[in-house]
Amino acid sequence: MSVVDTVEILKGRTLTDEEYFKAAVLGWCVELLQAYFLVADDMMDTSITRRGQPCWYRLPNVNMIAINDAFMLEAAIYRLLKTHFRREKYYVDLMDLFHEVTYQTEMGQLVDLITAPEDSVDLDKFSLERHRLIVIYKTAYYSFYLPVALAMYMSNIPESYTAPSPSSPSQSETVHPYALAQSILIPLGEYFQIQDDWLDFSGTPEQIGKIGTDIVDNKCSWVVNTALALANPEQRRVLDENYGRKDGNKEEKVKQVFGELKVGEKYAAYEEKVVGELKERIGRIQEVEGGLRREVFESFLGKIYRRSK
Amino acid sequence: MSVVDTVEILKGRTLTDEEYFKAAVLGWCVELLQAYFLVADDMMDTSITRRGQPCWYRLPNVNMIAINDAFMLEAAIYRLLKTHFRREKYYVDLMDLFHEVTYQTEMGQLVDLITAPEDSVDLDKFSLERHRLIVIYKTAYYSFYLPVALAMYMSNIPESYTAPSPSSPSQSETVHPYALAQSILIPLGEYFQIQDDWLDFSGTPEQIGKIGTDIVDNKCSWVVNTALALANPEQRRVLDENYGRKDGNKEEKVKQVFGELKVGEKYAAYEEKVVGELKERIGRIQEVEGGLRREVFESFLGKIYRRSK
Ligand SMILES: [Mg+2]
Ligand SMILES: [Mg+2]
Ligand SMILES: [Mg+2]
Ligand SMILES: [Mg+2]
Ligand SMILES: [Mg+2]
Ligand SMILES: [Mg+2]
Repeated sequence: MSVVDTVEILKGRTLTDEEYFKAAVLGWCVELLQAYFLVADDMMDTSITRRGQPCWYRLPNVNMIAINDAFMLEAAIYRLLKTHFRREKYYVDLMDLFHEVTYQTEMGQLVDLITAPEDSVDLDKFSLERHRLIVIYKTAYYSFYLPVALAMYMSNIPESYTAPSPSSPSQSETVHPYALAQSILIPLGEYFQIQDDWLDFSGTPEQIGKIGTDIVDNKCSWVVNTALALANPEQRRVLDENYGRKDGNKEEKVKQVFGELKVGEKYAAYEEKVVGELKERIGRIQEVEGGLRREVFESFLGKIYRRSK
Repeated sequence: MSVVDTVEILKGRTLTDEEYFKAAVLGWCVELLQAYFLVADDMMDTSITRRGQPCWYRLPNVNMIAINDAFMLEAAIYRLLKTHFRREKYYVDLMDLFHEVTYQTEMGQLVDLITAPEDSVDLDKFSLERHRLIVIYKTAYYSFYLPVALAMYMSNIPESYTAPSPSSPSQSETVHPYALAQSILIPLGEYFQIQDDWLDFSGTPEQIGKIGTDIVDNKCSWVVNTALALANPEQRRVLDENYGRKDGNKEEKVKQVFGELKVGEKYAAYEEKVVGELKERIGRIQEVEGGLRREVFESFLGKIYRRSK
């Protein structure tokens, strides 16, 4: 629903039925893009379940046909766009945006796949920098920038406009609103994923509605990368020998190292720092008629900050 | 090279270096689309080799990552289009065309996959009508219509124009050149695939450069569908028991039924009929300045008619 919400904020009013419908179609296109990636991701990860149900490729009579099904989920995006937006002057921008974000996500997926193959553990490949690259490309573009940029096109936000300079408001400067939105939403998406990684380790099943599996699944998570950056040789040895193994005892040993290294404190510090920076960036947005609104970003940040599920 | 050739015919002259380059980029985009489909098709068919080399997914360290690699081949199309055609007024038409043809091919692939799974033979699912549907959607759109339509857009052929009526040339009528091109190229593509199916059965390895495997691979080929339409109950029993089995003796029994049923005579009759119809349709094209040229279609047909490899 973030496309609908964002269009409402940008237009500053309730949407007409037609506007609501079109914004919802764009939201469904984001969902289709995610479905396309997840059907394929589950195959590449040989995952068993997704959201409590068997993964699509594991159903009888599906198997490898799921590859073509994923393709068709993607094709549905462009059929919906053509049906509902063909005559809008921003139609080409919508297509360019979906192509761009799809490509970025595929790049992130590739880096993830070669960094953390499920069947071979090599923590030398991990680093916080590598984690950042994966998270930004694989997740942040499509789940944070894409819905907002779609809403911006639908609200006819131009490629650039003039606004008072945040530092000296009597002067004006050129704003590139899509780049500006990206500069906030990409770190926001990174923060969201780091939080997700943190909750996978620290959250109780009651809190997060599932049992965390990042340690046994050899995930290139923020938690292990932070631990790797802090570990002494003995702790590193424990991580090398126990991370990414399908074994509850080994998982416990990893968790113990995470505890010793006080990763939780690092997380709390990271969260306060990034939220402060994001608030500062959002606060510098100069709101002008027909341009970006701070509330777009504040509402995202409000939903994420210190969430526990 | 069919995009380059077609643009040359439509423009009626040698291309400038820049025109040649752009037409070649479109040709490469067609190749990338094919690569995208073939990488995935080989996985879905669990094929071993492609063009004499191991299939991409079978290389060490590739495996299921080939799914994401296929996605990236597709993404490369839209990056190339954006880089080289973003400022052309037909840019949006190129994207719409690739989306449309991609979707059609995926539909054809789906029908193929559910009609002729490699591991379960059920000739009740086969029919000449089913074969036609698979061939048109899975092959004809992307390999015959797509390159010509791309060349037409690049040559600024409009959506419609006026030309003398073929039946009464003193009157004029509205031509829809893209629909007209499709009405010739889709049957032409179907003919090409039927020929391919025929050569797989009848061609010697010296002729076709490979050993035909359609019978053992349970392919929904024109040859078996024609045989099924003609077979008496005893011949049908032989086909049911021997088609699609990895067994040279069973393959021989199937070939014998194909021989008894004189499928070769049916093929020769089909070929003469379809070529006559295509020539007639091509002959009815009224050539006007800035419109379609008969030579586009004649050159395709010339390359295909009675080919033996
Ligand atoms: Mg996964
Ligand atoms: Mg994955
Ligand atoms: Mg997670
Ligand atoms: Mg195949
Ligand atoms: Mg196949
Ligand atoms: Mg063949």
